[in-house]
Parts: sequence; structure tokens; C-alpha cells
Amino acid sequence: MGLKRKDILSIASLSVDEINMILEASEPFKEVSGREIKKVPALRGKTVVNLFFEPSTRTRTSFELAAKRLSADVINFSPSSSSIVKGETLLDTAKNIESMQADIIVLRHSSSGAAETLGRAVRSSVINAGDGWHEHPTQALLDLFTIKEKKGGISGLGVVIVGDLAHSRVARSNIHGLVKMGARVRVVSPPTMVPPFFDQLGVEVYHSFDEALPGMDVIIMLRLQLERQGWALFPSIREYSRLYGLTAERVQLAKPNVLIMHPGPLNRGVEIAPEVADSHGSVILDQVTNGVAVRMGLMYLLSELN
Amino acid sequence: MGLKRKDILSIASLSVDEINMILEASEPFKEVSGREIKKVPALRGKTVVNLFFEPSTRTRTSFELAAKRLSADVINFSPSSSSIVKGETLLDTAKNIESMQADIIVLRHSSSGAAETLGRAVRSSVINAGDGWHEHPTQALLDLFTIKEKKGGISGLGVVIVGDLAHSRVARSNIHGLVKMGARVRVVSPPTMVPPFFDQLGVEVYHSFDEALPGMDVIIMLRLQLERQGWALFPSIREYSRLYGLTAERVQLAKPNVLIMHPGPLNRGVEIAPEVADSHGSVILDQVTNGVAVRMGLMYLLSELN
Amino acid sequence: MGLKRKDILSIASLSVDEINMILEASEPFKEVSGREIKKVPALRGKTVVNLFFEPSTRTRTSFELAAKRLSADVINFSPSSSSIVKGETLLDTAKNIESMQADIIVLRHSSSGAAETLGRAVRSSVINAGDGWHEHPTQALLDLFTIKEKKGGISGLGVVIVGDLAHSRVARSNIHGLVKMGARVRVVSPPTMVPPFFDQLGVEVYHSFDEALPGMDVIIMLRLQLERQGWALFPSIREYSRLYGLTAERVQLAKPNVLIMHPGPLNRGVEIAPEVADSHGSVILDQVTNGVAVRMGLMYLLSELN
Repeated sequence: MGLKRKDILSIASLSVDEINMILEASEPFKEVSGREIKKVPALRGKTVVNLFFEPSTRTRTSFELAAKRLSADVINFSPSSSSIVKGETLLDTAKNIESMQADIIVLRHSSSGAAETLGRAVRSSVINAGDGWHEHPTQALLDLFTIKEKKGGISGLGVVIVGDLAHSRVARSNIHGLVKMGARVRVVSPPTMVPPFFDQLGVEVYHSFDEALPGMDVIIMLRLQLERQGWALFPSIREYSRLYGLTAERVQLAKPNVLIMHPGPLNRGVEIAPEVADSHGSVILDQVTNGVAVRMGLMYLLSELN
Repeated sequence: MGLKRKDILSIASLSVDEINMILEASEPFKEVSGREIKKVPALRGKTVVNLFFEPSTRTRTSFELAAKRLSADVINFSPSSSSIVKGETLLDTAKNIESMQADIIVLRHSSSGAAETLGRAVRSSVINAGDGWHEHPTQALLDLFTIKEKKGGISGLGVVIVGDLAHSRVARSNIHGLVKMGARVRVVSPPTMVPPFFDQLGVEVYHSFDEALPGMDVIIMLRLQLERQGWALFPSIREYSRLYGLTAERVQLAKPNVLIMHPGPLNRGVEIAPEVADSHGSVILDQVTNGVAVRMGLMYLLSELN
Repeated sequence: MGLKRKDILSIASLSVDEINMILEASEPFKEVSGREIKKVPALRGKTVVNLFFEPSTRTRTSFELAAKRLSADVINFSPSSSSIVKGETLLDTAKNIESMQADIIVLRHSSSGAAETLGRAVRSSVINAGDGWHEHPTQALLDLFTIKEKKGGISGLGVVIVGDLAHSRVARSNIHGLVKMGARVRVVSPPTMVPPFFDQLGVEVYHSFDEALPGMDVIIMLRLQLERQGWALFPSIREYSRLYGLTAERVQLAKPNVLIMHPGPLNRGVEIAPEVADSHGSVILDQVTNGVAVRMGLMYLLSELN
């Protein structure tokens, strides 16, 4: 028994059974990461290549640690300064990596669909670590893992996702995952930051944060990507923060033991108040811990295939 | 039995026996890379340092994977942003690395002769991973390995090398290797891109690609280094491509089962047509696979010395 | 028996017993680095994260090698291009790394006190690999190790430290260490490069290099940081070199078997003459070798705590 697919490209393409399988496979690896000796031989002699066309120290590190704790050989391949400059195509780069017998390629790329293109082209397993505004499936899997761990399950929970939905692959993956797993999902976003098709995803769209909070078990704050263009869709950071920032007062509007989540890195004082980020209900650092476990679980399942 | 030399600096300095020894030592490592568990303990507890003064994700990755599959500890040391800025000399950098007990230093440097200088200065083995326009011996070794694997031998074969000979360390290493191994070597290049001494290397110099092709068993296309100055030696890319690009029609002029080789990365549509790069006769990705095996073989032989 | 502290933040905060314990613990690791198989399983399954906010290939490599030879999993986390750009705070970055179950965080940061702040915030052990102009304790420990190895002890020796004291964390750490271990310490510096409080550190301040040399057993030259602002405190490099550079003539003014030390990288011909750097009395490369051993010893002691 195991995953029947070679690649993890999106949450949209995973079945509920597959998501459950990944979450369950990740549990023992969470235990491994808490041990004195955080290492198992599951992927010994396998090669994992982190192919990151966008810089991301955090996600890359999480995958790198996951692979190393599985005893894989890990290569960081950041083509920005090298082959890309030299004009090689994504597929040629990937074919090269495949030819070096990579078992798993972890891809981050600025183009939506890049991971799918790659998955079709190579025999290696491909894990999408973020493709443009499309999906970031391992972020959603670690979020589902965290919610399940803290709340005992996902089905029936009220979850609200808040921020720039138009440019968030994290939102997109989480919406697909949460809806599949039976959560009631609300999204909150400035009108300029919601793509028109979002009401077809099985979520309720709100423009008022305060109105969306009552009855919610989980609040997922999105990072305001100050370094990206999406930001121009809003008049000022202060105004954004006033309307869509999570403050201690707003937390009171949700259910008593509401979980507070954020994919990081935090803009403290912008989308989340410092005292909320550091509060008892915040599971932001649990998400980081669980990220390593879920990536271990996923790589383990994919390597079982080969 | 084994290599008697500490360093691999050039193909020009290797004997036919040494080349044969390296090619034979690499064969079992090709088999290792095809296994479920791609790892042997041959270099456990040894330290390999990739000292790359020029960026090269692909070659660095090939060496890094080779070393890791031999169980060595590998350090990537890219001084561009650090000591070099601080004005340290190449020799001081190398002496430092030696003092950290590096067993093997893999050097890429923009100056011809840098590897030789280094090899004389340190006790560590030095492998030249490309020094200026001088040599790139492991590229030639993997090309020889690939030709031998596909054609059963090298002696007596007709091999044509096409491109900017003046600025190609790949061409220089391959010419030395192929001539030593008994191939008949032709080179094709615009008149502005052939250094005057090339006719002393035991090759026939052509300026017409079409005239050089009849009777050839292997075509080695060189990358047009669009990012370097050498490019200014030709009026336009389109003109270069028309005269010196490998098209499906040109392939017909060579022998029926001609091998098509390229060190990568490809400029598709410039020096090689996409349909030729992806054709049955193309062994470009086999070169990549064999690159890891040959580098494993070479590091294994060098470590036997110590 | 072992270190009672979680972090190594400064030499100022270490007791003489602790310094002795670290020096003694490092000795067997020097032996390990000289073996055929330079690897012990002491930190297998532990995670060491090199968190370098300032570029430093040499120090980072020394820590990376030390950790790998102890069989730890090592992650290089250089946030310059990533989360820092994204505006995350040092503490959030560190909390993330802690949440990935890092056992040891090696921190280099441009702010004095950054390591101490970090050490208070995380459960992971923190090793200060240089914080602003404050301290660089492992450099001082490897210097003490080297002096003890070459001279049989430290107490009673005359040691002179020469250079830009105002901007040198190496000087500060060495002064604390040498004074604690009972050496007589002189410092030599242009008047513009000595902070006012230096005479309270238990050292004699000289402005004439020649006057400071008689009776000295050890000369520690500081690197003139040409790439930093401190340089503006002196009229010209030539003038600096004439007054404060170590020449063969100056070496004669010290004791016959004087040790010559430098933390690297060298500015040959500026603060040290090439023939002095390469002379019999120079232990500059021993310092590099011992750096790996001392970092192994230190990480071993810290991991014993956990």
C-alpha cells in the first residue's frame, strides 16, 4: 500500500485518501525529529535535488533537513547564477538532473504549472515546492497535519483564510485541502485581491474580517508579500493592517480555542500583531516543526514507489 | 596498481594507459549509480572541497554527487562573495583548504594554469574542473567513456568537433584525449575562432561543416558561449547557426549511426537544432550520467594513492 | 563532567576551567582530523545550522567540516538573499530554525550581542561565530590551542596583538582569553584605532610596534579590514604598513622562537610581509587546522549537554 502517483504537484489533484495517507505516514517522522538521534535510513543511497529557481531559505531548508534525516544525499541546485544565465531551458536543466539519477526533484519556480511540466518530462519524482501563484501543496499538507494534531480532526471545523488571495499559492492549496477534508472554509480579502472564480472553490468570500470570524476554529493569516507587485492593489500598509491585520481584539471574535496559523515569514505588525503571533493559540512554530515531518513522510512514500 | 599521479590537471599530461585506467575504473561506478542504493563507502571519512571561482551549477553538482555517492564529506567553497572580495590570493585560499585536511580539491578557475599552480602548492589531490581556455579534463574523460560505451572503442573512429575552438577548454581536452586514443579528429570552426597552433595538435582543420562530416562516427558540438567575449568574433547568431549549427540535414552527411554529443548547457536552435538534440543518435544525457561515474572513478583512484 | 552552559557567546563569559576543558576536549579531535578516516559518530543524528548573516566562506567551512566529521547533519542558512529581504526578524528566523530541531546554531551577525540575544531566545545551543565588533570566541580558542600546542602552555608568555583594535572582534576575544590564561598581553595600534576602555582589559597599550616587541613569545597580527570603514582611520595603506606591518626585521626584535599568528585572510605586504607569513615561525596554517579540531571539541561538549 502506498501512493500510486510519482509526483506531488497540487492538492487539487490529490484524493482525500491520498491526503490521509500522507498525514498518517508523517506521524512517525514527527516522532523521529523529537528523538536524540534524528535520523532513519529510509532513503539511504537515494538522491534528492532541491531545484529552486526562486530564493527560499526556509522551504529549501525544511526539505533539505527532511531529506538528510531520511539519510538521502541532497544537492541544492539554484540555477539563478549559472545555467539560467546561460539560457538553458527548465526542461533541459531537469533532464540533466534526472540523468544524474535524482530520485526526487523538489521544484520551486515562478511559473504556474512548472512542476507539472517537469513531472511529465522526467522519471524522477517531482514535488512542487511552490509554482507561481498556483499551488504550494506541502504547505497545505503541513497545515492540515497541524490542524488535525491540535484539533483531533479537520472535518466540520470552521477555517478562515485571510489576505491577498489573488497572489497566494498557499491560500489556493489550503482551500483545496480544507474543502476536501470537510472543513467549512471562509476567505477574507480586499475586493481587489480576490480572483473572480474563488466562489467556485467551495468557500464563502468575505470582505470584512470581523464578520468572517464568529464560529471559526482556525485562522490562517497569509503573508502580505511586500516585496511583490500584488502589494500595489492596496492603498497603504497601515490601511491594510487596520482592516485585515489579526489583532488580539479580533481573535476574541472567533471561537475560544481558535488556532492561529501563518506560513511565515511574518510581517509583525502588518498582517499579524506581535502579541498574537506569540500567543498561546498560535501554532506558527508547530507548523515549522510539522513541515519537516510532513516532507519526510511524503518523500518516504514517494521513495516506496521506485 | 593505480594512478601514479596526485593531480588530474590536463588530458595533455595523461598517458594512454592512465586514460584507459580511469575509463575502466569508472565502469563499476556507472553500475553503482544505477542501483537502488547509489552509495559505496569508498571515500568515507575523506574530505572533498569544490573550489569554484567561476559559477557552474552543473559541473559542481556532478562532482558533489560523485563525492557523496562515494560517502565523502563534501564542502562547496565558492569564494566569489567572500575571501576573494577580501583580497586573499588563490594560493592562500588553497593552503587554507589543505590545512583543513582536504583530500581532494576540485578547482574551477578563470585562469589557464590555475590547477597546475595549485597542485604544486598543496599535498591534497587537485582535479581541474576547468581552467580558463586551457583544459577541462573530466569533460574529455566522460566524453571518451561515452564514445567507448556506445561504439565499443575509440581507436580508428572519425570524430568531428565543431564550434569556437579558440575559447573552448572542452575542445582542447577532447582533442588531446581523442588523438591519444587513436581517433581521427577533425575540427570545424569559423576562421576567426581557430588559434594558429591547432594544426600541430594532430587534427584536420575545416572551415566548412558540410565538408568535414562525411565518414564521421561522432559529432561533438561545442556550446556557443553567448555570455562571453568570444562571441564578438562572429557577425550574428543567425549567421553562426546557418554555417555551424547541427541540423537534421547535416546529420545525414555523417555515417549512419553517428553519435551526437554536446557538453551542455544547450543553446537550442543556435549550435544544435532541437530535433537533433532530442534524436535517437543524441547521447547528450548519457554524457551527464557518465560524468558522475567518471568523476567517481577518478576520485576513487586518487584516494587510493593517499 | 562537561560544560555547564548551553551557549558559547564570548570568551569574557568563560571561566579558566571552561577554557581548559574546551582545549583539552579538542585534542583528540585534532588526532581524528589527521586519520585516514576523518570521521567519528559523536553527533550522528544531530542537526547543526550555520546561520551566517555576514559572508564568511572560511569560518563557515571550518564549522561545516567540524560538524560533518562529527557525523552531524549540517545546513547552511545564509538569509541574505531570502527571509532577510522579506523582512523577518533575527529572532523569528532563529525560532524557525529551533523549531526544525536544530541542536546547535552557529551564528555570524553584524550586530554586537546578536548571539547573546539568540541564546536567550532558543533552546538550541548557540555558538557565536562573530558578532559585530564584539567577540569571535572560537577564533580565540583556536589561537589559545595553537599557542599551548607550540609553547607547551600559555601562562607567563608575552603576547603582542597588533592592528585595528577598535574594529576587531578577534582582538577582543583574544585579549580576554590570553589575560585569563595568565599571559602578559601587549596591544599595538594607531592611536585612532584603540578604544578608550582598552587599558581596563589588563593589557599594556603601545603605539610603537618596535617598542612592544622585545620579550614577546607570540605575535598576533590582525587583518587590516580594507573592505570596512575602519580603514578610513589611517592616512594610507603604505603608511600603515610601514608603521604596523610585520617585517622580517621586526620579527628579530621579539624572542628567538617567536610564534607568528594571523586569523586570515592575509593581506600580504600590508599587515604582514610575505616572507614572514611563510617563515618557520609562522603557525598561520596550524591555526586553520586547529580551528577544525577546536570547533569539533566545542560542538562535542555542547552536544553532551542535550
